[in-house]
Amino acid sequence: VSELDLIRWIRGRIGKRTGRIVVDSGDDAAVLKGGRGHLLFKTDSVIDGVHFDSRTAKPEDIGHKALARCLSDIGAMGCYPTFAVVAMMIPRNAREAWIKRLLTGLDRTARRFQTAVVGGDVASHAGKLAINVALLGETRGLEPVRRSGARVGDAIAVTGPLGGSILGKHLKFTPRVREGIELNRRFEIHSMIDLSDGLATDLGHLCSESRVGAVVDESRIPIAPAARRLPGLPLDHALFDGEDYELLFTLPQTEAVRVEKAGRGRVIGQVSAIDGIYLRARNGNLREVQRRGWEHRFRR
Amino acid sequence: VSELDLIRWIRGRIGKRTGRIVVDSGDDAAVLKGGRGHLLFKTDSVIDGVHFDSRTAKPEDIGHKALARCLSDIGAMGCYPTFAVVAMMIPRNAREAWIKRLLTGLDRTARRFQTAVVGGDVASHAGKLAINVALLGETRGLEPVRRSGARVGDAIAVTGPLGGSILGKHLKFTPRVREGIELNRRFEIHSMIDLSDGLATDLGHLCSESRVGAVVDESRIPIAPAARRLPGLPLDHALFDGEDYELLFTLPQTEAVRVEKAGRGRVIGQVSAIDGIYLRARNGNLREVQRRGWEHRFRR
Repeated sequence: VSELDLIRWIRGRIGKRTGRIVVDSGDDAAVLKGGRGHLLFKTDSVIDGVHFDSRTAKPEDIGHKALARCLSDIGAMGCYPTFAVVAMMIPRNAREAWIKRLLTGLDRTARRFQTAVVGGDVASHAGKLAINVALLGETRGLEPVRRSGARVGDAIAVTGPLGGSILGKHLKFTPRVREGIELNRRFEIHSMIDLSDGLATDLGHLCSESRVGAVVDESRIPIAPAARRLPGLPLDHALFDGEDYELLFTLPQTEAVRVEKAGRGRVIGQVSAIDGIYLRARNGNLREVQRRGWEHRFRR
Repeated sequence: VSELDLIRWIRGRIGKRTGRIVVDSGDDAAVLKGGRGHLLFKTDSVIDGVHFDSRTAKPEDIGHKALARCLSDIGAMGCYPTFAVVAMMIPRNAREAWIKRLLTGLDRTARRFQTAVVGGDVASHAGKLAINVALLGETRGLEPVRRSGARVGDAIAVTGPLGGSILGKHLKFTPRVREGIELNRRFEIHSMIDLSDGLATDLGHLCSESRVGAVVDESRIPIAPAARRLPGLPLDHALFDGEDYELLFTLPQTEAVRVEKAGRGRVIGQVSAIDGIYLRARNGNLREVQRRGWEHRFRR
């Protein structure tokens, strides 16, 4: 792969679908018209052998995942993604057509979420493929939903079923950008996070940022069909598998009723004043959940 | 190295020196108060064995370089850097103290250039150390200086001596942010680029973006002392070594006189209507310069 050729290809093909690009990525830096409200800024990397396996994954899916992980984070703030820059570290023996398929997948996802790729960097090296995406977003008059806003008594809800993402969803998930914005616009959401590390771990993050605890009803956790196709307890997969990329959020009980009626989320528990994440079994017994979500899916 | 511990350390230590951070990096994304004018957006990576050698380089210098390369690009637009996010890929056997020294070096450079590190990502992997920086900037009422604005008859100037960066400057260079802003504010600069790939290559980029050619006076190129300490012709090092990170810019001849009087640059040639980069020898003879700057210093 020639770095310059690839950059030229990217520059010609990707990310000019907005009137807000003043200077494109052919210059030292992209120049963009400022948007409405505050900025959101996020960076994230995916690495071959950690976040995907380049021997089995389709390159389009890898490109999708690289961007979608960042989109998911902006969605978890309930805000609008706008511009991305993409830095790739490419093995010296990479085939150019394969890399272009990866970038085409990334660009397709960018289009789908009204995001423009406005810059990039390509470096070939002796190591494995890695892709870094830095993503900008904007508030457009909305208040970003933080992790730290959960209040005792809030309902805890999720946007979709959990567990078993390793069977495919970890590569093909839909980042909940539209859902996050809609929740933020139409409902009073106190706190929100995206489920990348697993329900137990991410609910733990949300609770520790908010200085609260949580009780989750075992029977209310929506379990993905994939979680039942894996060895082990489906509930454990729903609790501990990472990379579901659904949204986890807390809100007043009355708002939660509205959210459930609108089909925008499912209540799974309640924020409590007692530290720790507890699981309520069908018989009413409580047990504390040990956090054991993993930081990256392939690392176990 | 524990990824979460390191992120917590970064969050506590780095990048809170501005009133513009609404939500810090502990959330899904940082939230920042919008600034004045247009946004600039840039990404760049440095990789062990390509852009530095972790066996010999001081970690503080590696951190400096990772950020300074992006700062140099914002400087080359004549604009103000503001916020950075840093993504690190860390070898599994990395020592935590060494990584913290690297981040301390990066943060020191951030402070020096009024830039706040507002987010990060840490992933350990089986490969080598790599650091990606995405940097935002803003125009604050200035017009960004593009590569494409050179006009026939412009003087071509540089901010400092060239060549031999491999002897140390490639790690310790000062990104010409202040110089770029000052040139943009006080003078009529038609085009600008930072010298990362070498004078011959980067002047080539600037000329092809501007659809012009250039004649450079051999005797006027400022040659760094380091270029004379290397084998080979010092002039060749000044022309073809990468990573000087000085600014190369073009401007009207009358402005060039003012710039030289103010000690803000040295004129080395003139923009011409004839395609290609030509070198004028002391005897007046012209020869075309073959571009052979390298894309990355360690790759040859």
